[in-house]
Order: sequence, then structure tokens, then C-alpha cells
Amino acid sequence: MADPLVELAGRLQAACLGRSLTVATAESCTGGLVAHLLTEVPGASGYLRGGVVAYSDAVKRDQLGVPADVLAAHGAVSAQVAIAMADGVRARLGTDLGVGITGVAGPDGGSEAKPVGLVYVAVSAAGGPAEVRRFLWPGDRAENKRASAEAAITMLLERASRATRG
Amino acid sequence: MADPLVELAGRLQAACLGRSLTVATAESCTGGLVAHLLTEVPGASGYLRGGVVAYSDAVKRDQLGVPADVLAAHGAVSAQVAIAMADGVRARLGTDLGVGITGVAGPDGGSEAKPVGLVYVAVSAAGGPAEVRRFLWPGDRAENKRASAEAAITMLLERASRATRG
Repeated sequence: MADPLVELAGRLQAACLGRSLTVATAESCTGGLVAHLLTEVPGASGYLRGGVVAYSDAVKRDQLGVPADVLAAHGAVSAQVAIAMADGVRARLGTDLGVGITGVAGPDGGSEAKPVGLVYVAVSAAGGPAEVRRFLWPGDRAENKRASAEAAITMLLERASRATRG
Repeated sequence: MADPLVELAGRLQAACLGRSLTVATAESCTGGLVAHLLTEVPGASGYLRGGVVAYSDAVKRDQLGVPADVLAAHGAVSAQVAIAMADGVRARLGTDLGVGITGVAGPDGGSEAKPVGLVYVAVSAAGGPAEVRRFLWPGDRAENKRASAEAAITMLLERASRATRG
């Protein structure tokens, strides 16, 4: 019950409710885990509008507005696509903050250039450029998903904490 | 590690891959848990295209095409909205099967007519009417989310198992 990631989600919720910030999620390799963790906390509907699980490239393009040429040029697992996912979900769901996560959870799908555990997390906010970070997790599929979700919630919390109180 | 719901997700994956069926999820009260469980199984990208976490009514309307008059007439927690979510995500993501889940996870948000634990799960498939079931779970928020996710994956598995092999 005392999942530390749910406790982290509770801190994000308090930060967002205190500043009247709304959030949306765009998840590829985490597959919905971020939204699941955020909604474990009672009252999440006060700031979380929703999200998109964009497992296929077509969903990234059609539901999040990730440009086809960005996908073609950089591949789905890239800083550019993470940013486009974060920007896209924030615009489409009309929120203050958006987070985008794309990576290779494993055990399959890795390559020399993009190995298992490579994950990009981007946070998009109004009035400033998106921030993106690159991670290389050493775990198995479930561990890499959780590490990526923790990074996503942490980056949202950092961005929310910097925001002026509404 | 041996989460029985992930094992259930593995059975759904095998049924869908064996029949060349694709799946999309539309989650309200489960908040992404269904997609998270499906993507715990390696190879999920072979049949799961993605999903929408529709926590707010606006996201149900704008991202899933749930008609505003259906939301107004029946409320977000209703069989009609569960069906519209399942139909909507299947149409928008272009999949063979869609699942919609809407309910009151608790501890807040319940009423006499729609108490905590009331959940509707609908499965939409091409070439037939959607199927919807009503549940009244007795647990806390996390337990109600898990029970709803189990019902959703079970209904998808039943529907996939009835499908003609592709």
C-alpha cells in the first residue's frame, strides 16, 4: 500500500492543487503507469485531466499530433518525439503541464543505437520551452517502466514547484 | 512479480496475437491501470495500439467522441457512456476491439444513485453491438481500480476468444 511512487504522486497533486495547475500525460513505454500512479491518490481528478497511451506510431501521430517527419527523422525513441508528445497532449487536453515518455522498456526492441532501457522524458509547460532528459535504465521491463514513471512524476513535480502560485 | 492480472493480460495477448486482433483502451476510473497491466507483458505492442485516459468529461467528449448529450442525460458513470467510450476509442485508434471503463473508485464522488464502487465496463467490436456490464465493488480505491481492470481484461479476453481466427 505504501508505494513510494504513489507518495510521490501525492506530492505532485498537492503542488498542482496549491497552484491551480492541470496535468495531462502522454505515455509510450510506460504504457499508462504514470496515469495509474497519479490516479491512485484520492482527489486526482482535481488536477489530472487525462492522458494518451501512445503505443503505436499512428497513435502518436493522430492522437498527439507528433509530426510524421519528426518520427521518420529521429525515430519514436528520441528527445524530439518525447517533446512533441508532451507538447501535443498539453495542447489537445488544454492543460498547464504535459509530460511525454518514450523509450525501450525491453526485453525486445533494443538496438546498438537505442538499447533496452533508453528512455526520454519531456515536460511541456505554457510560457517556456519544454525540458527533456535522457535516461538509460539497467532493469528489466517492469523496473524500467517504474523508473521511467518515477522520473516523469519527479520532473512534473519540479516544474510545478517552480510555477508561480495561481 | 507474479501478479495474476499480468498473467491474465498475457492470456489476452496470446488470444489477440493468435487471431490478429488489435485493442485500444478508454479508461476513466481505472486511470490507466488496464493499459499498464497489458504493457507489463513483453510483446504487447503486437496487438495494443494505445488508449486514452479520460478523467475529465471534456476529454471523454473531445478525445473519445462521447456525445455531450449522452454525458448530460446519463452522467459520466453510466452504461451509455461506457459504451460510447469503447466505441469511440475503437473508432479513433482504428482497432478491432475497444474497452471503456467508467465508475466511482472512491473514497469520494459517490451518491445514493451512484455509490462508491459502481463501475460500468463495455467492450466494442466490429460487426456487433457493444457489450456492457455493471459492477458494484466493495473495496477501497486501489481495490476497486484493480477489480475493474480485471473485469475489463476478462471481457476483452472473452470477446477475443469468440472471434474467428484471422
